[in-house]
Amino acid sequence: MSNPTAAMLVIGDEILSGRTLDSNTNHLAKELTSHGIDLREVRVVSDDAPSIVAAARALSETFEHVFTSGGIGPTHDDITADCIAEAFGASIDVREDARALLAAHYQRQESELNEARLRMARIPEGATLIDNPVSIAPGFKLGNVHVMAGVPSVFKAMVATVMPTLTGGAPLLSQSLRIDRGEGDIADPLGQLAKDYPELSIGSYPFQKDGKYGSNIVVRGQDNAQIEEAIARLAAEMAV
Amino acid sequence: MSNPTAAMLVIGDEILSGRTLDSNTNHLAKELTSHGIDLREVRVVSDDAPSIVAAARALSETFEHVFTSGGIGPTHDDITADCIAEAFGASIDVREDARALLAAHYQRQESELNEARLRMARIPEGATLIDNPVSIAPGFKLGNVHVMAGVPSVFKAMVATVMPTLTGGAPLLSQSLRIDRGEGDIADPLGQLAKDYPELSIGSYPFQKDGKYGSNIVVRGQDNAQIEEAIARLAAEMAV
Repeated sequence: MSNPTAAMLVIGDEILSGRTLDSNTNHLAKELTSHGIDLREVRVVSDDAPSIVAAARALSETFEHVFTSGGIGPTHDDITADCIAEAFGASIDVREDARALLAAHYQRQESELNEARLRMARIPEGATLIDNPVSIAPGFKLGNVHVMAGVPSVFKAMVATVMPTLTGGAPLLSQSLRIDRGEGDIADPLGQLAKDYPELSIGSYPFQKDGKYGSNIVVRGQDNAQIEEAIARLAAEMAV
Repeated sequence: MSNPTAAMLVIGDEILSGRTLDSNTNHLAKELTSHGIDLREVRVVSDDAPSIVAAARALSETFEHVFTSGGIGPTHDDITADCIAEAFGASIDVREDARALLAAHYQRQESELNEARLRMARIPEGATLIDNPVSIAPGFKLGNVHVMAGVPSVFKAMVATVMPTLTGGAPLLSQSLRIDRGEGDIADPLGQLAKDYPELSIGSYPFQKDGKYGSNIVVRGQDNAQIEEAIARLAAEMAV
């Protein structure tokens, strides 16, 4: 029984130039993992319409859920909504429900709902709005693509809105064991363990600390008893 | 005159599960930017051979340089070298020069060059080794794909080895200006600026701090005088 699959599409030159370290992917990854949805692929593309459209289409066709981050603000470089509409062949225009949300918000703030801000009410035909309790301008879901903001606090709020609407599988459980030996010394028993427990995923993540080699072994699966059995066997074999 | 293009392929379940925050992409992005090479796309895929092969092929065909991170250690989940060989239709086996590097290293360490460690000397036919001063097991370059380690200290050392071998374009320069107003208030002059300076890339990165909205405007390009002119005009218009 396999879990639903998902992909993340990060949109933004600032990630690709190295100016900004993307933290949204890591947040989404943790949320999906605990929800029993397998994040299978992440792509980061620049603020370039053909790249965004092509990536959105490819991921939407391959995975059950797609989540995007970035490019839905009021400035000229915010082109994500138009690109997602194009990817699905949907029309896009200012939508009344989104406009009303923004109008009320800017009235409370005593700011003007000018033309630039009105761009944030452009929603593709057939999309469902995603609530944004932080800065009001909504995200949206079109087809299987959830379009969310790039600002981390807003992204997190939107993920919190979306997560309860998704049907998860069995949560992926994991336990880890630190072994203070080089990977080369533990590779054989580890490979054997992976063969003996084909339903578990066994990963080895090496590190160097104070000039010494070690590895964190992470055993993942959906059956906690099986995970504990595998960890116990490894600990015994490694005399940890 | 456009700069050489590049893509990054991150391989590892630990990134997709959220257990590990990928920092290699950000390091490579900064290095490439200062070297005048445009990082255009990043993909993260799991430790799954068909996914790695397909992504390596797609990126290798689309971009001038590809850099991979992860999956070249001695354990059963380290399958990157075999996948890259498959992507290029190359054979792969233990290669004498790589074996000699490892043999000398483990002799110095008084450890055994066992079968697991010998896997790290498996190098595709026709590849060039990438020096690893940190933990010796080499990376390699096959076609336009640079295959490097996932451990950040080793990845950085390999990037430092590779970077001087690449012909860069004009370094991408940037200046930024912080404006303590919401994006909606500055979107119009910003869009006009972008139209008036088509050779510059003008990005707006909003933030919220202490309940107030602001945005960092980043102007990027290859002509510093032009960047300064654009920043000065924006500062004057915004009365920063």
